[in-house]
Amino acid sequence: MFIRNCWYMVAWDHEIPVEGLFSRTVIGEPLLLFRKSDGGIVALEDRCCHRLAPLSMGRREGDCVRCGYHGMKFDATGACVEVPGLDTVPPKARVRSYPITVRNRWVFVWMGDPARIDHTLLPDNSSCDHADWRYRPGYLHYDANYLLICDNLLDFSHLSYVHEKTLGGSARIAQARAIIDPVPHGIRVTRHVPDVPPPPYYQRMRSFSGNLDRWFIYDFVLPGTLLMRSGGRPVGSQPDDMRDAVQLHSCQTLTPETDTTTHYFFQQSHLANQGDDSITQGIYESLLVAFEEDRRMITAQARNIAVDPDKPMLPLAMDSALTQYRRIVQRALQAERGEAVVHP
Amino acid sequence: MFIRNCWYMVAWDHEIPVEGLFSRTVIGEPLLLFRKSDGGIVALEDRCCHRLAPLSMGRREGDCVRCGYHGMKFDATGACVEVPGLDTVPPKARVRSYPITVRNRWVFVWMGDPARIDHTLLPDNSSCDHADWRYRPGYLHYDANYLLICDNLLDFSHLSYVHEKTLGGSARIAQARAIIDPVPHGIRVTRHVPDVPPPPYYQRMRSFSGNLDRWFIYDFVLPGTLLMRSGGRPVGSQPDDMRDAVQLHSCQTLTPETDTTTHYFFQQSHLANQGDDSITQGIYESLLVAFEEDRRMITAQARNIAVDPDKPMLPLAMDSALTQYRRIVQRALQAERGEAVVHP
Amino acid sequence: MFIRNCWYMVAWDHEIPVEGLFSRTVIGEPLLLFRKSDGGIVALEDRCCHRLAPLSMGRREGDCVRCGYHGMKFDATGACVEVPGLDTVPPKARVRSYPITVRNRWVFVWMGDPARIDHTLLPDNSSCDHADWRYRPGYLHYDANYLLICDNLLDFSHLSYVHEKTLGGSARIAQARAIIDPVPHGIRVTRHVPDVPPPPYYQRMRSFSGNLDRWFIYDFVLPGTLLMRSGGRPVGSQPDDMRDAVQLHSCQTLTPETDTTTHYFFQQSHLANQGDDSITQGIYESLLVAFEEDRRMITAQARNIAVDPDKPMLPLAMDSALTQYRRIVQRALQAERGEAVVHP
Repeated sequence: MFIRNCWYMVAWDHEIPVEGLFSRTVIGEPLLLFRKSDGGIVALEDRCCHRLAPLSMGRREGDCVRCGYHGMKFDATGACVEVPGLDTVPPKARVRSYPITVRNRWVFVWMGDPARIDHTLLPDNSSCDHADWRYRPGYLHYDANYLLICDNLLDFSHLSYVHEKTLGGSARIAQARAIIDPVPHGIRVTRHVPDVPPPPYYQRMRSFSGNLDRWFIYDFVLPGTLLMRSGGRPVGSQPDDMRDAVQLHSCQTLTPETDTTTHYFFQQSHLANQGDDSITQGIYESLLVAFEEDRRMITAQARNIAVDPDKPMLPLAMDSALTQYRRIVQRALQAERGEAVVHP
Repeated sequence: MFIRNCWYMVAWDHEIPVEGLFSRTVIGEPLLLFRKSDGGIVALEDRCCHRLAPLSMGRREGDCVRCGYHGMKFDATGACVEVPGLDTVPPKARVRSYPITVRNRWVFVWMGDPARIDHTLLPDNSSCDHADWRYRPGYLHYDANYLLICDNLLDFSHLSYVHEKTLGGSARIAQARAIIDPVPHGIRVTRHVPDVPPPPYYQRMRSFSGNLDRWFIYDFVLPGTLLMRSGGRPVGSQPDDMRDAVQLHSCQTLTPETDTTTHYFFQQSHLANQGDDSITQGIYESLLVAFEEDRRMITAQARNIAVDPDKPMLPLAMDSALTQYRRIVQRALQAERGEAVVHP
Repeated sequence: MFIRNCWYMVAWDHEIPVEGLFSRTVIGEPLLLFRKSDGGIVALEDRCCHRLAPLSMGRREGDCVRCGYHGMKFDATGACVEVPGLDTVPPKARVRSYPITVRNRWVFVWMGDPARIDHTLLPDNSSCDHADWRYRPGYLHYDANYLLICDNLLDFSHLSYVHEKTLGGSARIAQARAIIDPVPHGIRVTRHVPDVPPPPYYQRMRSFSGNLDRWFIYDFVLPGTLLMRSGGRPVGSQPDDMRDAVQLHSCQTLTPETDTTTHYFFQQSHLANQGDDSITQGIYESLLVAFEEDRRMITAQARNIAVDPDKPMLPLAMDSALTQYRRIVQRALQAERGEAVVHP
């Protein structure tokens, strides 16, 4: 059961080719994506209404797609415009079309009721397309339900353990108390970690001679998006003095593929005037290493849960953010099902 | 749920070795096949009645098979004739035996009630063993339910799309109207396609300088067998003038292995006086390439269906043959279950 | 459904490293095993109570283990002794601990009620750690339910067929009548096979010029343990004259991993004064070859059963031991469920 009335990131802008057909499954539904001649992106159900063959195995014809099985041709709205051998097209012959919005190089798809489209629900991923920021785009495929990855991103206490030798570097991060505030459709998590050693990849951006005061401030919003400002400045510098600071902006989002698999899109930007290409590439590679550490742990956790799905978890203080976020997900699901929303 | 009272092709004649044991699963039941000393083929349940081990892991002893686990010995009728350590064999000790008929190099097994055996149900696969015809025998294994492959064979409109560059060659084929007539236990599909270019493999048999009038006339009969005469002759020649024509005969049959997998046996014969070994091999290889195109599409279709098994298909005019054939299958199943047969 | 109040062998003593963490699943429950600084072995549930991550992906800290996800630390009793960021540990924070006993290099775990621990249920595996005996320890993983392997060990009539060219060597073994007697929690199977040729690996221990009188006497006891004395002496020698005899002792046990997979631990000892290292290694390698023959047959049998789980087996005289043993298993399960125990 997934939330439908929201924007799911389905691809990075560059993943959709100028020619050709691209397929990806979102919340269990196979999607075909392609670009019209004007560059606009179309998303259709990747399943011909005739015999359910994947349209992505067919071919582009102008702004239409022709099924590779029996040749039915669909336009960019999903309407069938030609059936080989028939003079008229049956009115029912169409596949579902899904609204698409591209913002800052993220391609979003609306899986819910088109009448309820709401562009205010798009996340602020501005660092993904802004001259002040530089990054490499990232993607990982996960064999785990997306909520287990949300959990991970909502509790940075794992940094000291999962990422001890990469992102973490100090048990102080896990011990720092997070402040949690509500934001629309999600929560804000604020964590200040004073006087800790800089992690290796900070050192690759700037040479620090001593400890840093670090901060992590992120919004985590439906359907599963993290928007984070983080950084560090030398201990003793003023809170608003960023001259010697490292500043980062990270946009990450989880799109369920199926109940047990997830698409994970991510980037982490540094300021364009803080470092060159090698820094950009270095940050990206550091993330890949660290996210691989997460993936190894979370997929092992998912396998353990699959062995005994009824085994309860034990909520702890560190779970406050993820517990609140899971409630927000539950309320959104209840609302979509027309149930009374329980505010616990 | 499969039809039982019919002949399923279980193997090509040459697949069953003179010595040794051969196993293949038909409609979910594991079968052991072997040859007696007189060359006759025996089919037994490939599951010892004692502890259910596969008899195919045992050994031949004369016209008997001995289980490789505890040594029970069964004769060609499935009766146990020896239990090591016992003086007498319990009367219940036997495995099911299945009637076998070999006709024109096809080995058929009767999976239903032996009292209802009907040799008139054997298909006319005479070109599989006739001096006038030449072919190479073919076999493919499919990860799809057999009915999806029946569908494919019952609607040649896919030739223009799936086989655009191999068998097809012209959108005209997909657009030609098929005439459908009833035959016993199946339907006859007749399709004439005037004035189209010869496909590449026709050119390998004869050099045509212009377009052809092509024909495809096939019976598709229970349980899933296609018997086709096809060919082409120069535009303008008389319908009964075969002097410059290509003539082909193809026998193909689908045998369900399980609900989701299928054995596909096929051949396509050319006239022995039209071409040499290289032509025979060339036709076979062309079929392999084309049938691989089908397999790729149909298994993708099967995966799409598995994602949402309740998703309906949209019947179109081109589906007339396959819709009629699926009704024939349904009526046969109802009749075997003793239900009133609905004639829609 | 598995018996819980019994000792399952979880590992050979040498499998549990001095440092580091070891994981193995027993009757469907993931276990973490490690050694304390005093060498004592600890078994904990391999599933952190917090978010169910495997503790075996964490790290040893003294006699404790720290979860590699969020850093919870558990002592050797399973009690959580530290939660990073929390001053006090919630009393419910603990993982299950399992009693361990090491006897003669076998590590046993008690999966049932700790209040019902009964050391008298430990099997007599004394040849696994005794100066008179020599062996190499063995382990195989099986894709089959453990009862199918119990069946195999309880009916040596398969030796003549499965192991015709390795352990067996004579149809006489399969034909010899076994005497079955009750023992606590199991049965004793006694089989004398007079005047048969020595199997190849006997010949590697002693050079026999003629046939042997062989014997196989074993107890098979809950949960799935075989303790066997076997051997052979020249035909005509006195029953108690072991001067020219081969004498062997074998301890083998089956530990269910899941419903469909099994751990198989085994050894076969020869007398230390009968042969050198090459004999010890030779016996071990002979067993590996023979047990691989069993595994191939039993996993094929398991696949056949999975195709049609309701297909009945046909009990025969040779099944007496295994039928009795399966009844003992059923009664133990009924007793644990608090049901009236049916003594058929």
